[in-house]
Amino acid sequence: MRLRNVVGAKDKIASNKQSFDHPVEYIGKWNTVFENDNPIHIEIGTGKGDFVIGMAKRNPNINYIGIEKYDSVLVRALEKLEEANLDNVFLVRFDAIKITELFAQDEVSRVYLNFSDPWPKVRHAKRRLTHENFLKQYQEILVPDGELHFKTDNQGLFEFSLESLCNYGVLLKNVSLDLHQTEFHAKENVTTEYERKFSEKGFPIKRLEAKFKQN
Amino acid sequence: MRLRNVVGAKDKIASNKQSFDHPVEYIGKWNTVFENDNPIHIEIGTGKGDFVIGMAKRNPNINYIGIEKYDSVLVRALEKLEEANLDNVFLVRFDAIKITELFAQDEVSRVYLNFSDPWPKVRHAKRRLTHENFLKQYQEILVPDGELHFKTDNQGLFEFSLESLCNYGVLLKNVSLDLHQTEFHAKENVTTEYERKFSEKGFPIKRLEAKFKQN
Repeated sequence: MRLRNVVGAKDKIASNKQSFDHPVEYIGKWNTVFENDNPIHIEIGTGKGDFVIGMAKRNPNINYIGIEKYDSVLVRALEKLEEANLDNVFLVRFDAIKITELFAQDEVSRVYLNFSDPWPKVRHAKRRLTHENFLKQYQEILVPDGELHFKTDNQGLFEFSLESLCNYGVLLKNVSLDLHQTEFHAKENVTTEYERKFSEKGFPIKRLEAKFKQN
Repeated sequence: MRLRNVVGAKDKIASNKQSFDHPVEYIGKWNTVFENDNPIHIEIGTGKGDFVIGMAKRNPNINYIGIEKYDSVLVRALEKLEEANLDNVFLVRFDAIKITELFAQDEVSRVYLNFSDPWPKVRHAKRRLTHENFLKQYQEILVPDGELHFKTDNQGLFEFSLESLCNYGVLLKNVSLDLHQTEFHAKENVTTEYERKFSEKGFPIKRLEAKFKQN
């Protein structure tokens, strides 16, 4: 995503009740932030928030946390969240490389990765959000049998992710090389602006679900 | 592949020195058939033989066995093999569902599956050559760290195979969703008539390599 500095983004995130900047103090206590014990699903790289807000509207009994590294992007999601009037979403400015500082063991039920940065250069492979180093952390914060749901238009990232996930030892299900032709898409898929744009350009969207085995 | 009865196919296979019909008597003794101890690579569903003959030409120090269920198809491969003058290929008429009756434990170094029948109906899933029931048998006949190399134009079969292989517990490598765009294709890929035809029609060829863990 193209980044542009947004004046006042940091302050806006700090002052809004539904967004936090680096809130490591809530580790292990996110249920108290939501004021209920509903399952917590997180999206890493939430961008402009379309997905997490769309999911929260459809699933009022799930708590969503959208995590984004950049203030200037997250503030756009925050503007959308203000319009949506939802109490089951929080937005968090945080670098996912330290995700185990944000969530305790077994605190999260599902991790979503949508259209993550492909980092195509081999020397940047460790930055890909499906690299083994990230998978270890997801497994730690996820409940036993917790799931990772991943979609992308990027062929190279999908190929890498299939290998990385399989070789890590997850169970794969609902692998699709052309999501928009599936029944899942017709019935359940929450699409983002980016997803629609790339799909319309003829790039098939790839998707998978991975279940982590018990620790 | 469309099947047409070929008069005399059965006799031709029986009488040629490089083809056998259901040769279970060679189990554990294929090195004596080849008269050397080179690694044995097999292709299941060898069709008209383009792949296995092409590979044998390129790799004189590998022994190839092309396995095909139907006489009327295998006889076409045999005609091509007669022209090729190769001593490192045998063609075998056999139903792969009983592949462990054809090869002993650790007798095979690699299994190739190319453009296998997709069996798209869910109730036929067990017939797909990447179904768990087949994987168990491949693992048995393969040497430790033996590999399965699989390519197909069929999206549904590839999706199924990714799940089946991953959930069986293999290691995946060289996953490609568009083989003909890869360096491997430019340098090493032996293509068949079928592969060229479908690729030219705009169906991307998908490929993967899977390594079975030690028994």
